[in-house]
Amino acid sequence: MMKPWSLTASEALAKIRSGNLTVEAYARSLLDRIRQRNEAVGAWVYLDAAYILKQAKELDKVPIKKRGPLHGLPIAVKDVIYTKDMPTQHNSPLYEGSFPKVDAASVRILRHAGALIFGKTTTTEFAAIHIGPATRNPHDPTRTPGGSSAGSGAAVSDFQAPIALGTQTGGSTIRPASFNGIYGFKPTWNSISREGQKIYALILDTLGLYARCVDDLVLLADIFDLEDDDEETDPFYGVKGARFAICKTSVWDHAGEGTRSAMARAATLLKSHGAIVEELDLGADFANIEEWYRVVLHSEGRTAFLSEYRVGKNQIHDVLVSHVENVDNFSRKTQLAASDGIAALRPRMDEIAGRYAAIITPSVPDEAPVGLRSTGSHVFCSMWTALHNPVLNIPGFQGANGMPIGVSLVAPRYRDRHLLKVGKAVGEIFETEGGWKRQVYE
Amino acid sequence: MMKPWSLTASEALAKIRSGNLTVEAYARSLLDRIRQRNEAVGAWVYLDAAYILKQAKELDKVPIKKRGPLHGLPIAVKDVIYTKDMPTQHNSPLYEGSFPKVDAASVRILRHAGALIFGKTTTTEFAAIHIGPATRNPHDPTRTPGGSSAGSGAAVSDFQAPIALGTQTGGSTIRPASFNGIYGFKPTWNSISREGQKIYALILDTLGLYARCVDDLVLLADIFDLEDDDEETDPFYGVKGARFAICKTSVWDHAGEGTRSAMARAATLLKSHGAIVEELDLGADFANIEEWYRVVLHSEGRTAFLSEYRVGKNQIHDVLVSHVENVDNFSRKTQLAASDGIAALRPRMDEIAGRYAAIITPSVPDEAPVGLRSTGSHVFCSMWTALHNPVLNIPGFQGANGMPIGVSLVAPRYRDRHLLKVGKAVGEIFETEGGWKRQVYE
Repeated sequence: MMKPWSLTASEALAKIRSGNLTVEAYARSLLDRIRQRNEAVGAWVYLDAAYILKQAKELDKVPIKKRGPLHGLPIAVKDVIYTKDMPTQHNSPLYEGSFPKVDAASVRILRHAGALIFGKTTTTEFAAIHIGPATRNPHDPTRTPGGSSAGSGAAVSDFQAPIALGTQTGGSTIRPASFNGIYGFKPTWNSISREGQKIYALILDTLGLYARCVDDLVLLADIFDLEDDDEETDPFYGVKGARFAICKTSVWDHAGEGTRSAMARAATLLKSHGAIVEELDLGADFANIEEWYRVVLHSEGRTAFLSEYRVGKNQIHDVLVSHVENVDNFSRKTQLAASDGIAALRPRMDEIAGRYAAIITPSVPDEAPVGLRSTGSHVFCSMWTALHNPVLNIPGFQGANGMPIGVSLVAPRYRDRHLLKVGKAVGEIFETEGGWKRQVYE
Repeated sequence: MMKPWSLTASEALAKIRSGNLTVEAYARSLLDRIRQRNEAVGAWVYLDAAYILKQAKELDKVPIKKRGPLHGLPIAVKDVIYTKDMPTQHNSPLYEGSFPKVDAASVRILRHAGALIFGKTTTTEFAAIHIGPATRNPHDPTRTPGGSSAGSGAAVSDFQAPIALGTQTGGSTIRPASFNGIYGFKPTWNSISREGQKIYALILDTLGLYARCVDDLVLLADIFDLEDDDEETDPFYGVKGARFAICKTSVWDHAGEGTRSAMARAATLLKSHGAIVEELDLGADFANIEEWYRVVLHSEGRTAFLSEYRVGKNQIHDVLVSHVENVDNFSRKTQLAASDGIAALRPRMDEIAGRYAAIITPSVPDEAPVGLRSTGSHVFCSMWTALHNPVLNIPGFQGANGMPIGVSLVAPRYRDRHLLKVGKAVGEIFETEGGWKRQVYE
């Protein structure tokens, strides 16, 4: 029999439902896997095996009829998201031992659906800076798993959890997904409540979801009530005959060889499967968006971190100090022009993205860089975060060192279900023919 | 000597600073006042006198040099805002006894400045519905103090606290300010962190501040680092020669006699003090904003209350159930058109409001209605909440039954300091000559 830890969420849930796997056995299997791999990866900041098993046993006692749709599903939670039964410490000395005894809205929904909230995963400080925690990339321990959702990305990639929650303000969900070779889904902004999740920039922060297959993300989309409009002028029936846009964006010069060849291969594969693939040049209208993003991020960070600045200026990273002190010297006029400018582009991007089954765009500059200090660049993600579009990282390609590289699919706002549908079809092609194969390290 | 409970925050802080009042004596005086008036008003949902006095004594021991700018200042906190040392229960049976042991960002900032977090004040359920808690209007116990910040508005009005925190998603700060005859300030959206404050609609929710004079709000603006741009094309030097707009809005037919005469008296008084007063008709461009506001509110509520709906559908109000179930049947297209439509109007309103020292507009339809069941209408507030403008309720007028009525001053986004400056000058005129006099009930 396949080891339970190697199952996807959908597979595991089916086995639990059919009585072929107990929640306890599943949890024990994952705990074994974690024990075996924890020293190499270091994805967890809080994990209480005894408490997990206690909960697992209780879940096994729940009568079949009273079980929720995610009954027994272990979920890893990034340590910037409140959990009523575990501390939430934001990788900040200011929050050492902090234990808000309340669930974030997302966690409350998952727990109510029967999920087993497994433990807390590592993050960069407040999910806001680019200096990694001690977590290593499962595919190469000398490399970063990316950030800020470092532990969540690594845990799912390394079969230590089937599902994990991350967050994204720049590229904090999509980048680790690409670096770890998994699916990372940033749904439409505010389509899932962000209550109980640390604030960096209110207008950017989004809950992110990790899994090793699209079906597992669909499970989560169901639970979180993600709902597109019914009417679709151009429904997606498969890659054949569908239109895709290749959008290199204005920051294409940041793309290294790995991403350049992944994007080229993606286009070739889609064409070979009968898709129409066009280049999309966003042109001058979107020329300011990178700078506007930076202005909004720093300005909102100025509000968000004032309390930590006051309480312990010397215990927060310089980047956060510089936000609060407005070192950029952004005026309110500049701030409002940036946020209004982005707001005006959102419906424009919906209109553009709506012409395609999806826009294909880089997730990252290249494979995960060597070293744990930097979690890598969010340069290819920030625009879509600002525009509130749903984004899905599809793995399948690889870089010069054999590390995974993904590409992003983007859809209009509130076309989350559509995006998952397209992502499933595209993912099957990229994962089969892209060149990178998922590895299991023992 | 004046009883300490009757002091404004600025007066009390001066006395504490000069050694003429201890924090303990001040706290005892407020507790006496509360004991005397609590049965009549019922503003508090959590108040621990022994704990308050313990903290007060500790504050008195802090060496002068180590005292913060708000040292010893008692602040009442609406019970939808986290306090690390008191439960936060949202007036919901689902959160009975809930005690997230973490401060909201706003509370953390105030506590660090030396404030004495006094207790939690009543709110409507999740600050989201219009059915009042048992709190009574201090000026007439048969009338509502308004909501949702019912207890905060009543406590400040009734001299039970010099300062209180509220929130506003529709009219939850401004309406109680008008009904209670106090200053209520809704600063620019996201100019103060909303972390640790229950979410209803992310793009609307704003922290609100209550005081009995503008100087006290300036203290808070200082602590929260509210900062306008320096350059001002048309600085405010006083009411004489300043331009004001009277904006009756498209919902003017909701204005009763009390508000109609308050608005007329406001214009007359400003003119008599040398101001230029013009009527402002927003015209067709703003015609959809009331409906857009409703769409955004309900759509964001759909996201915000999904977790409570799942956990206890029968324990949340029907209005919240209807949001989650999208009883309105709003499509995503409708939702996005509304939120994008409002976003496009924000810079337009800044431009319009920037032509005046302030826009003067109704706070409420009339004086506080009889009965505690309905907290009144937010019809005159919702547009400004949607547009993110700072709004200040200025008391000074009265209705047919002698109850207080205020009017709102509105400024462009991030002109919060300017608005307080104008509000101080205007408030002195309205409070002196508007006809309503602040009462102290024994």
